[in-house]
Amino acid sequence: MSERHYYRIEHEGQAHFAERHGQELRLLSAAPWLDGAPTGVSVGRAGARLLAPVTPSKILGIGRNYAAHAQELGNEPPKQPLVFLKPPSSVVGPDAEVVLPHQSQRVDYEGEVGVVIGRRARHLTPERALEHVFGYTAVCDLTARDLQKLDGQWARAKGFDGFCPVGPSVCAGLEPSRLAVSLSVDGERRQHGRLTELIFSIPSLLVWLSAAMTLEPGDLIVTGTPEGVGPLSPGSAVTVEVAPLEPLCFRCVADPLSPP
Amino acid sequence: MSERHYYRIEHEGQAHFAERHGQELRLLSAAPWLDGAPTGVSVGRAGARLLAPVTPSKILGIGRNYAAHAQELGNEPPKQPLVFLKPPSSVVGPDAEVVLPHQSQRVDYEGEVGVVIGRRARHLTPERALEHVFGYTAVCDLTARDLQKLDGQWARAKGFDGFCPVGPSVCAGLEPSRLAVSLSVDGERRQHGRLTELIFSIPSLLVWLSAAMTLEPGDLIVTGTPEGVGPLSPGSAVTVEVAPLEPLCFRCVADPLSPP
Repeated sequence: MSERHYYRIEHEGQAHFAERHGQELRLLSAAPWLDGAPTGVSVGRAGARLLAPVTPSKILGIGRNYAAHAQELGNEPPKQPLVFLKPPSSVVGPDAEVVLPHQSQRVDYEGEVGVVIGRRARHLTPERALEHVFGYTAVCDLTARDLQKLDGQWARAKGFDGFCPVGPSVCAGLEPSRLAVSLSVDGERRQHGRLTELIFSIPSLLVWLSAAMTLEPGDLIVTGTPEGVGPLSPGSAVTVEVAPLEPLCFRCVADPLSPP
Repeated sequence: MSERHYYRIEHEGQAHFAERHGQELRLLSAAPWLDGAPTGVSVGRAGARLLAPVTPSKILGIGRNYAAHAQELGNEPPKQPLVFLKPPSSVVGPDAEVVLPHQSQRVDYEGEVGVVIGRRARHLTPERALEHVFGYTAVCDLTARDLQKLDGQWARAKGFDGFCPVGPSVCAGLEPSRLAVSLSVDGERRQHGRLTELIFSIPSLLVWLSAAMTLEPGDLIVTGTPEGVGPLSPGSAVTVEVAPLEPLCFRCVADPLSPP
């Protein structure tokens, strides 16, 4: 397999998917998982304004999928995948400023590997599941830890605008068992995990999810976070690394609004 | 205010939004909440193949928003809106056959009024919230009651394909405080509730949700179900009525798959 990197950029006021060739981004007519073809237009990678590389119809998250992380929050490792949804309105691209909302006193980082669906999937088998994956990306599943407990359901605690930084690219042609994620705050490493440590592997997640619902091309599955989660403050600079992707960076800012 | 009814139909192999004028559906160039304009093409209401009248980027549900329903399931009325998400892949249109999945031994009906967002909304105030509503529709928030308890998070229990029948139309120009929902199974009424009975009114839900996330045009907010929920069986014929909309009907079928 050869690695291919796909981006989404703003070019002349429009959003375009693009494939990287060296220092060039070659624009595509549609998302690569929707058979986007080269338009013949290229722009330099260096000057391009990067957007989130996915526009998912749904974002499925998996809670407590590393045993050490389940333990650090005082939870048992789950007996089945713990599935939640994040709204598409929470997605932001690389280099975003993420507001830490006034409703929460503790917003935690959770660095994760994201799986991008390539072909519509329902009732997958373990053997064929990976054929429906387009590629992989880096995600930070930001979580208002206090609201997560208060609310019970996690839709709000994980659903604020900006709570799903993704990117900078989606990489196809990778062997997922070789992937790892690490996360740093202000240059200091806080998390590191390998996909081989997942309690529920990517094929078993795809089987579980597609037994309930249709996975659409471009949908994003966020596979769980390793141990080391912790709180962010205004000014915190966060980097999520899923090699061979470039690092995903974002910065936290205070909420300009105060509670009503 | 004058009532206007908007549908989505399949016409010559394509999905189109349409506005009803008497017995005619006049096709629109886009969703009415995205300024769709008449294309000049009309089809008869009678022969039209109806699709779900919304294609939301997110579906926000509200749990236990009628006191009598919270009590019937042994829950306290909530102190704040109990927010959850349903995936867009769960949406089906009128007259669907909904599979009762083999993973669940008890799928309950929950008849509800759906609110369709008209204008992008963030940080709404109670006074201006209703200005961002396009209209109202009927929804059945199908719920695998056993999996809801087992999973803890409700994404799967409320997220199976087919678990969000919507329609048949979206009605604009209504006064929401006059709306009511009723639900019947095999012609027998099981639920009835008025929006004036909601613990959290539609404006207060819009304020709460938009304090966390951007509500996009076409997004669907499902406002909660009155008391009387109960299980469905293969063959059950369900009708959800939100006058002045036509009734929303669907039928339950057994899962052709057995557990693996």
